[in-house]
Amino acid sequence: MRLSSGDSIFYDLFTAAALNLRDGVRVLSEALAPDADRAALVPRLKDIEHAGDEHTHDIVRRVNSGAKTPFHRDDIYRLAGGIDDVLDDVEAALDLMVLYRIKEMPTGIAAVVDVLDRAADLTAEAMPRLRTANELTKYWIEINRLENEADQTYRRLLAHIFSGEYDALTVHKLKDVIEILESAVDGFERVANIVEQIALKQ
Amino acid sequence: MRLSSGDSIFYDLFTAAALNLRDGVRVLSEALAPDADRAALVPRLKDIEHAGDEHTHDIVRRVNSGAKTPFHRDDIYRLAGGIDDVLDDVEAALDLMVLYRIKEMPTGIAAVVDVLDRAADLTAEAMPRLRTANELTKYWIEINRLENEADQTYRRLLAHIFSGEYDALTVHKLKDVIEILESAVDGFERVANIVEQIALKQ
Amino acid sequence: MRLSSGDSIFYDLFTAAALNLRDGVRVLSEALAPDADRAALVPRLKDIEHAGDEHTHDIVRRVNSGAKTPFHRDDIYRLAGGIDDVLDDVEAALDLMVLYRIKEMPTGIAAVVDVLDRAADLTAEAMPRLRTANELTKYWIEINRLENEADQTYRRLLAHIFSGEYDALTVHKLKDVIEILESAVDGFERVANIVEQIALKQ
Repeated sequence: MRLSSGDSIFYDLFTAAALNLRDGVRVLSEALAPDADRAALVPRLKDIEHAGDEHTHDIVRRVNSGAKTPFHRDDIYRLAGGIDDVLDDVEAALDLMVLYRIKEMPTGIAAVVDVLDRAADLTAEAMPRLRTANELTKYWIEINRLENEADQTYRRLLAHIFSGEYDALTVHKLKDVIEILESAVDGFERVANIVEQIALKQ
Repeated sequence: MRLSSGDSIFYDLFTAAALNLRDGVRVLSEALAPDADRAALVPRLKDIEHAGDEHTHDIVRRVNSGAKTPFHRDDIYRLAGGIDDVLDDVEAALDLMVLYRIKEMPTGIAAVVDVLDRAADLTAEAMPRLRTANELTKYWIEINRLENEADQTYRRLLAHIFSGEYDALTVHKLKDVIEILESAVDGFERVANIVEQIALKQ
Repeated sequence: MRLSSGDSIFYDLFTAAALNLRDGVRVLSEALAPDADRAALVPRLKDIEHAGDEHTHDIVRRVNSGAKTPFHRDDIYRLAGGIDDVLDDVEAALDLMVLYRIKEMPTGIAAVVDVLDRAADLTAEAMPRLRTANELTKYWIEINRLENEADQTYRRLLAHIFSGEYDALTVHKLKDVIEILESAVDGFERVANIVEQIALKQ
């Protein structure tokens, strides 16, 4: 990563935060595979979450110290917080699967994982383009499309787990995990909305 | 609806959005009747939700394009978003009943439906009065009273569905729907709070 | 309580609100004891909640009436609202235990109650120190530590209630109560964050 001078350091920091989030989503994808050794993946994701906290603190500290910022301070806080929130959901989803000792997620979960993977890629690719507001429209249109796709998948999953195939306790566990995954997808959309608002102001 | 010139177009747009929300609540009321053909009502509510999105986008577009506004831009966004949120809950409640294949809601649900109907009427009647801040106090006192009433009903419903009459899976389904209805009532209260703040500033 | 003149009345009002919240947490602690007569504690907590509403309204009324404030008006609203939110959770937790006719909470609940007790003490002790920003750092570091501790306890409790010992309906009831207690702990952390931001601006 090229080190920037002046206020452009913020673009690098957001790019690093989004790449770190993408790493986190990759670990979650592994964990959602049917034969995954989930407990072994928990410390890997924990490390990624700590790295994410470092990025967020670095960004907030620079803003608080009065550094010149490329866009409004509040938007910087919101964007950093938005990326952080998605990573928190990603970690919470894996934690809950381990905590609940879930053996297997419904196969339909693969479609949600796929959406998370693509949203993480799109977000990581969009951050460096904040500098020039280049092709950001395509990014947030695609994220919104993905969120709609995930919403359909989420509803099919809900209908499936409540269909009678699972006992009530398992339904409760699966629904808790699926809700966090859905929240992670929504979180990517919120990040895209913040980016949109930043780009529109520029 | 009389077409307004200048900034007073916003009163008409909010009135149209609130009337549209009232239409949505009416469809939900039909859907909550014991013998309703819910699947047939889904597309009707979907159309109303699309009309609501149009109203919201129209309002936001006018504000973003720099149009003169009768009250603070942030309050316009919040009021439009607040009405939109209630309609989202209304649609989500019907969707979930269909998705979960719920045959019958507990009879106590009629009281919640009644509150939603009255809150929708009061909100639709209040919007044109934003122009003169006329009798708005009565509107938000009554909405707050309705929200308290709904809260009592919500708690009675919770106690009822957890009393042992229903199996755990049905309890989970019913609770999810009842929570969305409660959220819709809270949404009407949030709209009333935004209107109150707008009126107090005038 | 010494009555203050000018803007320093706000320190007294926040101290009174935090002491009242501490009273509420004490009643909840009693209610979570295995042999508690919970129904008898409901009206006591209701009275405390009404007293809390009075404090909040008094604070908001003074700000709205244009009184000189010792820190930014928005921060005063947020701090008052933050304290109010915790008390709402405290009351909701007791209400739900009575409503669900929960006989006994898992023994692990004692650790959560302990965290709530200590967080309430720390918050009540911190409010008078807002005046001088004295030793507030210790307060919010300790609250954050408590929140992390409660988070671990919360997860152990979740793992326990989903372990198979309880039937699905009981799991649903217990989880609802535990989630509100966890939300109350988070609420204390939000209050500490608001206090931190106020102190940093001073």
